[in-house]
Formats: sequence, C-alpha cells, structure tokens
Amino acid sequence: MAQILVIYATDYGSTKKMAEAVAQGVDSVAGASSLLKDADSVTAEEVTGSAGIIMGTPVHMGAPDWRVKRLIDTVFAKLWMRDALVGKVAGVFATGGGLGGGGAGVELALLGLVNNFVELGMVLTPFPKRTPGYAEGGIQWGPYARTGDAAGNPIGIQDAQCTGARHHGANVARLALALAQATVFPDAAAE
Amino acid sequence: MAQILVIYATDYGSTKKMAEAVAQGVDSVAGASSLLKDADSVTAEEVTGSAGIIMGTPVHMGAPDWRVKRLIDTVFAKLWMRDALVGKVAGVFATGGGLGGGGAGVELALLGLVNNFVELGMVLTPFPKRTPGYAEGGIQWGPYARTGDAAGNPIGIQDAQCTGARHHGANVARLALALAQATVFPDAAAE
Amino acid sequence: MAQILVIYATDYGSTKKMAEAVAQGVDSVAGASSLLKDADSVTAEEVTGSAGIIMGTPVHMGAPDWRVKRLIDTVFAKLWMRDALVGKVAGVFATGGGLGGGGAGVELALLGLVNNFVELGMVLTPFPKRTPGYAEGGIQWGPYARTGDAAGNPIGIQDAQCTGARHHGANVARLALALAQATVFPDAAAE
Amino acid sequence: MAQILVIYATDYGSTKKMAEAVAQGVDSVAGASSLLKDADSVTAEEVTGSAGIIMGTPVHMGAPDWRVKRLIDTVFAKLWMRDALVGKVAGVFATGGGLGGGGAGVELALLGLVNNFVELGMVLTPFPKRTPGYAEGGIQWGPYARTGDAAGNPIGIQDAQCTGARHHGANVARLALALAQATVFPDAAAE
Repeated sequence: MAQILVIYATDYGSTKKMAEAVAQGVDSVAGASSLLKDADSVTAEEVTGSAGIIMGTPVHMGAPDWRVKRLIDTVFAKLWMRDALVGKVAGVFATGGGLGGGGAGVELALLGLVNNFVELGMVLTPFPKRTPGYAEGGIQWGPYARTGDAAGNPIGIQDAQCTGARHHGANVARLALALAQATVFPDAAAE
Repeated sequence: MAQILVIYATDYGSTKKMAEAVAQGVDSVAGASSLLKDADSVTAEEVTGSAGIIMGTPVHMGAPDWRVKRLIDTVFAKLWMRDALVGKVAGVFATGGGLGGGGAGVELALLGLVNNFVELGMVLTPFPKRTPGYAEGGIQWGPYARTGDAAGNPIGIQDAQCTGARHHGANVARLALALAQATVFPDAAAE
Repeated sequence: MAQILVIYATDYGSTKKMAEAVAQGVDSVAGASSLLKDADSVTAEEVTGSAGIIMGTPVHMGAPDWRVKRLIDTVFAKLWMRDALVGKVAGVFATGGGLGGGGAGVELALLGLVNNFVELGMVLTPFPKRTPGYAEGGIQWGPYARTGDAAGNPIGIQDAQCTGARHHGANVARLALALAQATVFPDAAAE
Repeated sequence: MAQILVIYATDYGSTKKMAEAVAQGVDSVAGASSLLKDADSVTAEEVTGSAGIIMGTPVHMGAPDWRVKRLIDTVFAKLWMRDALVGKVAGVFATGGGLGGGGAGVELALLGLVNNFVELGMVLTPFPKRTPGYAEGGIQWGPYARTGDAAGNPIGIQDAQCTGARHHGANVARLALALAQATVFPDAAAE
C-alpha cells in the first residue's frame, strides 16, 4: 500500500476542505491510501514513510502560509540534508480569497511549494488543463480554490474546485504507484 | 519633457489596445509624453532616450511572447553590458486568453518582463491594489487584460482593464518625473 | 529625516552581519537613518513610520526563512489590507550556505521578499551589476552573501559582500529621499 | 525503444556541448535513445514522437534564449491546445557566462523552461543534489554550466558540469521508461 501524505494549513477551513477532497482522490486509487495532516503536526517519520506528498496552503501575500514554511524549514530541510526523499512524488494545491483579475498571487504561492519539493529531488506532478475542474480553479502547478471573487467578496469553495482537487490527488497516487518499483535516481555515491 | 517608451507585441490587437491605454495614461501627466512602439521595431536609441519603459506582452505558455524576448536578447542585453539604463523607471502589463481559474500563467509572464528590467538596474513601478481597474484585471506586477473567460471563450478587453492600464501609465510617468533629477545609483567606478 | 527599517532573521549571525552593513549604508546618506530590527520584534508602527524597508533572510529550501514569512503574514498582510505602504520604497538581501554552482536557491528566495513588497504597492530598488561587491555576491534582486562554497563548506561572509550590502542600503535611502515629496500613486478612491 | 528529444539553442557552442553530454546520458540507459536537435529545426512530429523532452538554453537576461521561446510559442503552444504531451517526461538545463555571485539569473531561466513543460502536463524530473557534478554546476531545476567566473571572465565548460548533464539525461530516460506503461493522467473527457 502506497501512503500519500496530504498536508495543509488552514485559516477558516477552506484549505482543509480542499485537502479532504485531495485525500478522497488518493483513496479512490487501488493500492494507495491517504494520510491527512495539519502542517503543525507533521513528523519526519510520516514524511519518510510516504511514497508521495501533496501540500496545500492558503495564499498569503503571494506565498505559502508561514506555518507551512515553518514545517519546510524545521522538518523538510533536515530530510534534504540526507537526501531522504529523492525520487518520491509531489503535488501542490492552494486556496485564496485575494483581489484582482490576475490570479491574486497563487502562481508564486504554488511555486513556493513546488520549489521545496524539487530541491528535495522529488518528481513533480503537473495539473493538466484537461483535468475536470481546471476551468473553475486550475493553473498548471495545481488546483486552486479561490474563495472570493475578484473584488474580494467571499464566495466559498465551489464543487468544481473540489473535483479538480480529487483528480489531482488521484493523479499523484497513480504516479507514486507507477514509480514504486523504479530506481530513477541511483545513488552514485553509494555505488 | 520625459519620454516614456511603451513597447508591445500583439497577436490580434489586444495587447496593442492595452498599450494605447497605457500611452494615454502617460500623456495625461504634465511633463511626460509617450512613444508607442511595436517590439519588432524598437531601436537602442529609443530605449536610451527614454526616462521610463513600459513593456506589454501576450501570455504564451506562461511567459512573454518570443518577439518580446528577441527584443530583450538583441537590444536590451547590449544595453545591460554597458549599464545604460541604471536608475531609469520600468513598468509591465499583459493580456491573455488562457484557461483556468488561477490566472492562466500571467504572473510568471509578467515576472519575465520584470526580471529583465531589474537586471538592467531599473526601478520597478508596482500596480497597487487600490488602483481603479485592479479588481477586473490586476495583479501586483501590472495590469492584465484577460481576453477569454476561464473556459477559454473570447470576451475581449473590458473597459475597466483599460482604466487600469491608463492609471499604470500615469504612475510610471510620475515616478520617472520624480526621479528625473535624482542620482539614486551613483557610478562608484566612475568616481 | 527619512527612517529606513532594516529587518532580518538570522540563524548563526550571518544575516545579522549583512543587515548591519545595510544599515551602515543607510546611515551614510545625509537625511536618512536606519532602524535595525530582528523579524521577531517588528511592529506595525515601525513599518508605517518608515519611508523605506529593507528585508534580509537566510535562504532555506529556496525561500525566505519562516520567521520572516510569519512577520509578513501577521504584520504586513494587515497593512496590505489598508494600502498603508503604497509608494514607499523597498529593497531585499539574503545569505545562504547552500549547495551547487547555480546560486543555491537565492533567486526565488529574494523574489519571495520582492513579491511581498510589490503586493504592498512599494517601489522596488534593484541591485545594479556595476555596484561594488556585485561580482562576489550579487544578483539583480539584491546582495547575497554566500557563507559556504559550492560543496557546502563554510567560508563565512566576505568583505566584498558587506560592501555590496552597504551600497544597497545607501541606494534604498537615496531612492526614499528622492520620492519623499512625490505623490506617484494618487489615491483615486479618495479624490 | 523510448526516444528522448534533447533540444538546445547555442551561441558559441557551450549549450550544444552540454546537450551532447545530456544525450550521452540518455543513450547510456538500456531501452532509451536520444534525438539531439537545435531549437531552430524541431518539428511537432519529433516532439510528439518522443517519450521525454530535455531542453537547454543559454541564460539571457535571466530567461531562456528567444529562439527557444519561439519554438515554445510556435510548436509547443499548439500541442498544448490539444493536450498532446500530457504525462510525458521533461527535464531542463542551462549554460551562462553572466555576472555576480548569486547564480547570474539561471534559476528564473530554468524555471521559464519548467513552466512550459508543466503547462503541457508533463512530469518534471528534478536534479537531486547528490547527483555527481551538482556542486560544480547544479541547482534543483537542472544542470548549469557557468562558462564565466563571477566577474565575467570566460572559463569554459568544466568536466564536472558535463558529468552532471550526463546523469540528468540518464535520469530523464529512466523516468520515461518507468512511466512508459502507466496511465497516470486519464483523459476524463474521453471516458
């Protein structure tokens, strides 16, 4: 059974709701099971015990929430030191209620998560534009549930955005299973 | 009179229309005048003869149009070599008809323009969220006219997006005028 | 007197040392004075009472330190809500001991700081390549003191890197003074 | 046999040399073969006929060369329209002779290539830090051969940088083979 760790931080429950949809998508794939965790409580063992990691964040000032960054700095940075996650699979998602007709900063926020996983030597799962829910809440880096309209008025999370999140969770799980037996990145130093 | 060079590439006229609104904004400021040019025809003399530069592009695959990049590589890169634009003022804008509810790649596309100007040592003009037109077509890096809805159906450029573009043009002009007499970045090597 | 707030987070003192050099550069400009603060202790009043802000961070996993991000999320995000910093001046810098011959993640780390300031509607100060110290520790976004070699061995902060930091501090101060009397971004809603 | 298309643009031969090392790495993997092409001559059929694509560019003003961008806009953008590359594998690399101690703009240049591939729905191959050659020319996004020192003096491509490129080519080939039989991203619309 391939465990996929789904990590989120949440302010008012929106990112948690998206994370639950991601986890449902993971669990819909035979051979995969999700472990859903708040960023405040993730341990290094939960990370290293997973075949894939999906991380979600509210968008704050065009970047991930500070609690997500604290997890990255205090748990993931140490795993980076010892190359513990090389070849595992990663995916990202976000929510936001920001202003403006240009995505409200979600692109660099998602990229801030992507960046961490690529530094760890993990294989990145894209969010293809043909995925159901992409039109309502997608960008190439991952699903995005915008919880406000362009003028900042709250509209909540739309069903189509949860649909996108479920598909993304399933995609990451399938990628992790496809790579479960592969050695893509041999440890040359250990040879 | 401070000349502000407004550069655009255009596929179907949308970015040109936004560029015209930007130029109107420039011309609305006493002491400033716009020079509107297609990216294919910009000369080094036009660049160095301007107090500020505003560049706009269609979003193609999440990045600036290749004709804009050709201008950067063939004209701006040489000016970078000789520090010819240090301390001048820059602004950016974009149009796009892309897919998805997450900005459709505009953020990295605008950042691709910003990056060039910052390498040149130019002072970057932001697009503050209180600017009229921001809700309809704005992100912090500059105005954005999305010419399609999230599902990709064409909707054209909205008036509010031109409003944002005009204000941005005026902001860049005012910033250039404010810095016209200042030596912010002294040439230490020349001292 | 224009106050320039210099904010840093530090692990082993390197970013603090760079921040002190930045502050010296600020204080070398007539009419400007620095206020040097650890990110953990910055108040909203100190931010709004400043004409410019320079923020520095260690590079952790290719992004700003989580303590810097906490300050952004808890103090700056509220000031963004009320457009409190529009038209002020910003600058950024970083330190890092990372691995590899490609900058070790400093570019996206600095961009993570830039992004916040541009969202706030602040004018960005570049780090022109002719600035003394650029060769030893510069990238267009700001000064960078790499405290380890490409293989990760500690080498400490070099004098040339402090030189770059001092010049950057002076540049930000001069830009703030040049804009002190200007209204570049009028509040259209208030007109 | 899985074909891996290795695309490059080159000014003075440096990126071509790195591309040849990448192609050697591909060919070292049983079941994979490289197709090495200049960006000016790549056809849509060569792209769709490949299981993986590795793209390299000189760094110009912190972004990919305009000839690479032209290929993206004229060939890849059309393949994006019809989701022709979803689930294939991608990798990136770069060369540069730029200035400064902060990577000289390679990070955003590589990210400009990454961005295109992720929009296309392709799976991204990271460049893990333990890969031989990383210390001399690596960043998480891919191998980087810096052909000048920090002050801009030419030093040519180092052997260790070609070593990194070879390993990267082999990694991409292995990832493509591992995914050859998998359907990670089902076409929901076609179901």
